Amino acid sequence: MSKRLNRPLPLGTPAGVEVLTKILTQGPIPRVQIARRTGLSQAAVTKAVAPLIEAGFVTDQQALAEDAAEGRPELGIGRPVSPLTVVADSVSVIGLKVTPTDLIGVTTDFKAGILAVRHQQLTDLSAATVIEQLASLATELMDTLDDEADPSGPLIGIGVAVSGDVDTLHGVVRDSPFMGWRDVPVATPLGEKLRVPVVVSNDVRALTVTEHWFGVGVDADSFAVVTIGSGVGCGLYVNGEVVSGAHGVSGELGHLPLAPGDLVCTCGRRGCVETVASSDAILARVRETTGQPELDLSGAIELARAGDAHAREAFDRAGEVIGSALAAMVNLVGPELVVIAGEGVADYDLYDQRMRQAFAKHAFGAAGDCTLMLRSHTFDDWARGAAATVIRSYVRGEPPLQR
Amino acid sequence: MSKRLNRPLPLGTPAGVEVLTKILTQGPIPRVQIARRTGLSQAAVTKAVAPLIEAGFVTDQQALAEDAAEGRPELGIGRPVSPLTVVADSVSVIGLKVTPTDLIGVTTDFKAGILAVRHQQLTDLSAATVIEQLASLATELMDTLDDEADPSGPLIGIGVAVSGDVDTLHGVVRDSPFMGWRDVPVATPLGEKLRVPVVVSNDVRALTVTEHWFGVGVDADSFAVVTIGSGVGCGLYVNGEVVSGAHGVSGELGHLPLAPGDLVCTCGRRGCVETVASSDAILARVRETTGQPELDLSGAIELARAGDAHAREAFDRAGEVIGSALAAMVNLVGPELVVIAGEGVADYDLYDQRMRQAFAKHAFGAAGDCTLMLRSHTFDDWARGAAATVIRSYVRGEPPLQR
Ligand SMILES: [Zn+2]
Ligand SMILES: [Zn+2]
Repeated sequence: MSKRLNRPLPLGTPAGVEVLTKILTQGPIPRVQIARRTGLSQAAVTKAVAPLIEAGFVTDQQALAEDAAEGRPELGIGRPVSPLTVVADSVSVIGLKVTPTDLIGVTTDFKAGILAVRHQQLTDLSAATVIEQLASLATELMDTLDDEADPSGPLIGIGVAVSGDVDTLHGVVRDSPFMGWRDVPVATPLGEKLRVPVVVSNDVRALTVTEHWFGVGVDADSFAVVTIGSGVGCGLYVNGEVVSGAHGVSGELGHLPLAPGDLVCTCGRRGCVETVASSDAILARVRETTGQPELDLSGAIELARAGDAHAREAFDRAGEVIGSALAAMVNLVGPELVVIAGEGVADYDLYDQRMRQAFAKHAFGAAGDCTLMLRSHTFDDWARGAAATVIRSYVRGEPPLQR
Repeated sequence: MSKRLNRPLPLGTPAGVEVLTKILTQGPIPRVQIARRTGLSQAAVTKAVAPLIEAGFVTDQQALAEDAAEGRPELGIGRPVSPLTVVADSVSVIGLKVTPTDLIGVTTDFKAGILAVRHQQLTDLSAATVIEQLASLATELMDTLDDEADPSGPLIGIGVAVSGDVDTLHGVVRDSPFMGWRDVPVATPLGEKLRVPVVVSNDVRALTVTEHWFGVGVDADSFAVVTIGSGVGCGLYVNGEVVSGAHGVSGELGHLPLAPGDLVCTCGRRGCVETVASSDAILARVRETTGQPELDLSGAIELARAGDAHAREAFDRAGEVIGSALAAMVNLVGPELVVIAGEGVADYDLYDQRMRQAFAKHAFGAAGDCTLMLRSHTFDDWARGAAATVIRSYVRGEPPLQR
């Protein structure tokens, strides 16, 4: 249990946080580069880095050692460049993703590198049962960290990702239509059971944090993550930060009023994108138009791939409204890059053409010049996203991981 | 002409920019408050402020003098609090707004306070003629600054606000449907004529900069400015900065595909909000449904206010699609506050009810909890926005006002 001891980061000032963030997301990176990119003096960088090296979170030896192993000589004359990296195994993190059918859990290191993966089936969606199962899955994952043959760093926290309106500050799921949850406290009961800080986030926002810290966001000034599948979601990164919404809601691409008003959404509204474009909506449409009420989603996908006109029409309709939604989003926010992710990416061939047509039709001027990038999907990514939110809170000293 | 001499700001470091920004937007403000709000040490604040006081941009005397005049004693014991303010008349700025019928120009002080206003009618929209007229209007405004009886600070730059896709970095209007302009260079020809730096911006974004620096944005963590009238526009402020779009396009609320696809927009696309909600679209609809092809906008407004069913329907339709567009925007971005501005605000009574209904119908969860605020409109506000973009570039040392 010593593993779960608190491990405080020696970061006195906002400059310290900025320096560690640069090392974590852009390392190996030389001190002079950090100074250039943060606007801090080199003396200030060196001052911030010293206690981090001392405490074992950062090293300037690793890259040199790797270079030497690969036969690369040290660069420059006199003082070596000695770029800085974080010590990956200085801490460990657990990330858990909640879906209506499964819990997916991962352990990661400080760089959000996945160490172990565990799944558990959910049979009962009542909050008490799910929290019980989250605790048991987390315990199982903690045991993997305790392996003496392959030691991991102390566990700093557990991240939980849930779809819907999530109040991260209070650790409460305010409204998750997929889970049928309203105002369900998650952080407090789970944290009390496990005696570890718990960060609860909207799942798409967690995925966006991962891209920001460990993915495309490291090189992009602005980007959007759009997820397609059982829901249609969107995370936005702009002006140096993930957009969180003044009241905790943002990126609700699936609930833009872009579809015909004849269908009622899971959220209770009419005309939402998801009434046409969620995988449930597509399946319902294929069942209706083909007259096969027993069809499942993979059956519908098969029919569409085989060229069945009714099945194709349902995917075309979905692709078209997703394309319009993408255009609406880029017209408003103008990101450099749009990453398309989510389990629907596996069937992307069925949306692709209509989606691009609708996007081209409605994207306004140079807003349409953004890059569209496809991210192949695994459910582990969602759990890794939950872990990334913990790493971010830890580095920034945000609740519940205040220093 | 000595008035137009370059007046460099003594800001060595990013900290200096941050400190001056706080004084400009939140002054009078004591040094200790600046330190608290910027995370800088008090020593760093004092160091940044000293050259600004020395050069006459900032003072710690004014508020004390005002307090004394009002008979308020100095606060505290020993060293007085002496809050800092900018010296309003240490510099002057010119802001120009281009519309298809008029040019509106203002001179302002360092705090974007309007000093003088001048209008000029436009008869010819060719770029060469408009730039000629902008130069003559600017010259007229410069003369007001040269008044020896009421001296103003040296002119630091001229801001020009135009609707459409504007490339501020290169000073080029890339696409302005209202003006019929494509790839029109403005900053270079105007700057060469007048020998003053020129900042060209999208008009709604300029208005958003004003709200950010000198309006509601000083107290709001995030906000949107939505303009209704001849166009429907939107400026967004989120994560500490106005959203500019990776390719210069953002906030194109008027071109979200939320209207029926039967009408073609001024931008050439179908289904844009403006096909139903711009004042031209409303007027066209009222002319058509009432069978009065000679009607003008004020006539249409009169009819609607008098209860004419056809005229009301056109405004209802506009209000409904504006409400849906507002909901789409808050669902995606989740701002704390939405300011509704633009010349259409004068007729707001005709949109209000349907707009609020559609907004309530489609705003997702807590995203709908944002405050809707009406900003009464004058065309001078647009010109003041253009001036604010110059003040921002000057303080930040951004092009074309690099230090
Ligand atoms: Zn919905
Ligand atoms: Zn349009």
